[in-house]
Formats: sequence, structure tokens, C-alpha cells
Amino acid sequence: MSAVAIDVTAAMSLNAHCARCIDNDELESWTQLFTEHCLYRVTTADNHAQGMEASLIYADSRAMLNDRVLSLRTANVYEKQRYRHLVGLPVLLEETGRGRQCETPFLVVRIMRGGETSIFATGRYLDELVVGESGQLQLASRVVVCDSHNIDTLLAIPL
Amino acid sequence: MSAVAIDVTAAMSLNAHCARCIDNDELESWTQLFTEHCLYRVTTADNHAQGMEASLIYADSRAMLNDRVLSLRTANVYEKQRYRHLVGLPVLLEETGRGRQCETPFLVVRIMRGGETSIFATGRYLDELVVGESGQLQLASRVVVCDSHNIDTLLAIPL
Amino acid sequence: MSAVAIDVTAAMSLNAHCARCIDNDELESWTQLFTEHCLYRVTTADNHAQGMEASLIYADSRAMLNDRVLSLRTANVYEKQRYRHLVGLPVLLEETGRGRQCETPFLVVRIMRGGETSIFATGRYLDELVVGESGQLQLASRVVVCDSHNIDTLLAIPL
Repeated sequence: MSAVAIDVTAAMSLNAHCARCIDNDELESWTQLFTEHCLYRVTTADNHAQGMEASLIYADSRAMLNDRVLSLRTANVYEKQRYRHLVGLPVLLEETGRGRQCETPFLVVRIMRGGETSIFATGRYLDELVVGESGQLQLASRVVVCDSHNIDTLLAIPL
Repeated sequence: MSAVAIDVTAAMSLNAHCARCIDNDELESWTQLFTEHCLYRVTTADNHAQGMEASLIYADSRAMLNDRVLSLRTANVYEKQRYRHLVGLPVLLEETGRGRQCETPFLVVRIMRGGETSIFATGRYLDELVVGESGQLQLASRVVVCDSHNIDTLLAIPL
Repeated sequence: MSAVAIDVTAAMSLNAHCARCIDNDELESWTQLFTEHCLYRVTTADNHAQGMEASLIYADSRAMLNDRVLSLRTANVYEKQRYRHLVGLPVLLEETGRGRQCETPFLVVRIMRGGETSIFATGRYLDELVVGESGQLQLASRVVVCDSHNIDTLLAIPL
């Protein structure tokens, strides 16, 4: 099996799968898009610009992401609303020792049970993309930088 | 003339044309992106999840879509506002006997004559893509699943 | 060095860089995506439909764009808020003597310092894409047609 190249088409395909897993509530499949020793953080633009490490969500392995998903399943809090991710076009940046940096804008809309629809979050994904063992593109690292600091602190779903 | 492959690039191109036809008020061209015996339905996520067949819009042929466009032209109701479609990245799914399933998120913004801008609808397109007689990709089926049940019941334009 | 083809992938890549430069406040890099004798205009859909030349922003060279960026740097007005561009899928249109027409929808979200997030503008880019001296795709012309006429007249950043 030949490995995929880390190009714009492959990056878009990975992003499309990511967004679909979250919006279709298939979070167990979402964690499979990360490497085993991945980093996943959600932060704000202000914190990121100041180099602060504080994170709204932090996981440094796929096992931690799976734990988080499991606790979401138990709490069931995320069923009260629906989310829709619109992921923009990726820009491939410098190569790393094991893969390549990639930056991608996103917009998440929240749809409440009552039907009200509003912008929930905007920002950019700062990713390190690598070719995983299966030959497929994976996320070795995703730092989600939210534009607004007014992010719901009881952030139920991943972004 | 060689036929296009059903890949992500072709799916994005079809979606881009679809959105442009609607937003530029070229609805007669929009219907040409469907096969003659197509299915086009607009429904809500709740109805879709429960397997209900109720549709806000239903057409089971291109002729029915053309009829709908003609009645919109006569009524002219759709000229009072403007719409802007932002279509996300497609995920190609299983193959069918004649083509391939594809799922794509979308966001539609409505701009009123007075200038007020708001999110009109979000959701996903559940499509069956086929290669048409002309060798171009076409929609054999599009089920528009809206995230919110609060869709304007006097839905003037297609989504 | 071989020149890029003017295809959908190259157009998406150019749009991704454009949006990233603006949202990351790298406006000096943004102007480099235009040809030296470029045209850049921001107008409204109503004005555009009536063939009116009135523009909210007008520049007929890269030097004028650089001047504008310089005055933004001096005024610093654009630091009070953040913007997030979501650029849709491009549709390639007719060829021109030197390149090709391209139309692309966009959505810009504004995030105020206080955190409030709202739709700032939607519309479409009417571009002429050419292969520049460096072999890279560039904008020979970009007319930004905003859907709403309620655009902030003190438009600080480019769209």
C-alpha cells in the first residue's frame, strides 16, 4: 500500500473527515484521525499570541482523546444542540522532521434544539500532518486557535 | 470525450457550480446539474434521523425541478432577498450501482434588501453522484438535510 | 521553473493564501499576490448589477495597495477587531487574453475585542487569474462584490 503525499488535496480530505465525524456525532472515529502520541489543544488567539500554554481542552495522546469522548458519552451533554463545521482551505507551511505544518480556517455554527442558529466559534487549525502507519494522513498535532475569548467554558464537543 | 472520474475534485467542482447557479439566480442552469430522473428533497435532521419521508421540497425528476423554477419566476418572490451559499468539503462514501454517495456540509446566508445579514440554513447534502450522458458529473439524488427545524416554510429558493 | 496551470487546485491555493494573509495581519504579503498593474475594487451587488463604477475601495496598481496597507499600519485602526475569511469553492470561467476569469464566494466574520462574533460581509470575488513572472498564480484583477449595501464605510481591512 502506497502512502499518501502530504498535499492540499490530502489535507482537505482529512479536514473533511474530521468535520464530518464531529458533526455526525462519530467521535470515536474522529480520534482515529490522530496519531497515538498526538497533541490536541484548544486555545484562544490572545493566549496563543502571548505564548501562553493555557488550554480550554488539552490532550497529549489519542488515549486521552478517547477518554474525553467516553465521558461525553456518559454525560450526554452534547446532545442538546447540534454543530456544523465549515472548514476553509488549508495552507501548507514548512516541513517538520516527520511531516508538515498546515494552517486551516474554520467556522462552527451551533443549532439549538429550539432551532436558533448562531456562530459558535471561528478560528484556525494549526496542524502537523504526518503519514500514519496505515499510509493515511493523520494529525500528529492540532492546536485549535479560537478568534474570540468568549468560548463557552463548558465546551462539550471538540472543535 | 472521456468521462470524469468521481473524485473529490470533481465533486467540489459540481458543488461550486450548484452554489453559483443558485446565488447568481441562474436556476435554469442549476436544474441541468441533475439527471433527468433525479430525486431532490429538502428535509430536517430530526425527520431524517427518524426515517420520516416528509419533505419541505420534493421533486423526483428534472422536469419537476424545472416546473418549480418556472413558478418561482412567475411569483418573483425570491427577488426580495439574496442568498450566499458556502459549501464545505465533500466526503466520498460507498459506491452505488450507478455512482457514488457523497456527503457535504453547507451554510446559507440570507441578505435582506435592507442589508441585514443572517444565517439562513446549515446542514449537509446527501448526494448520489453519477457520470451523466455528457460525460460530466451530475446529481442523481440530493437530499438536503437542514440542521434546524426552523426553516422558513415559504422556502423560495432551492438550498 | 515551470509555471502553474490555471486550474481549480491552483485557484484554491491562491485564495487560501489571500485569506490567510489578511486574517493573520500579513497585509504586505497579501499585496504580493497581485500583479504590479493589478486592479482591486470593492463594490456592492446593487452597484455591480447596475454597472456603476463607484467603489468602496479602489486601487489600480500594487503600489496603491501597498500605500493603503501602509496607511492602515499608521492608523492602527484595524487592530481593534479580528476577521475570519471563509472562502468557498472557485468556478473557473472564460479565458482572457492573458489568463482566466474565476468566481469565488466568500464569507467574512468579525470578532470584536469584547468577543462578540457576527457576519461582517458575504459576496463573491470576480477575479482574473494570470501566471506571474515567478511562475506563480497571481491576481491581475479582483472585484469584490458584497451582497449587502450595509458595508461598514470605514472599511479598515481588505476583503
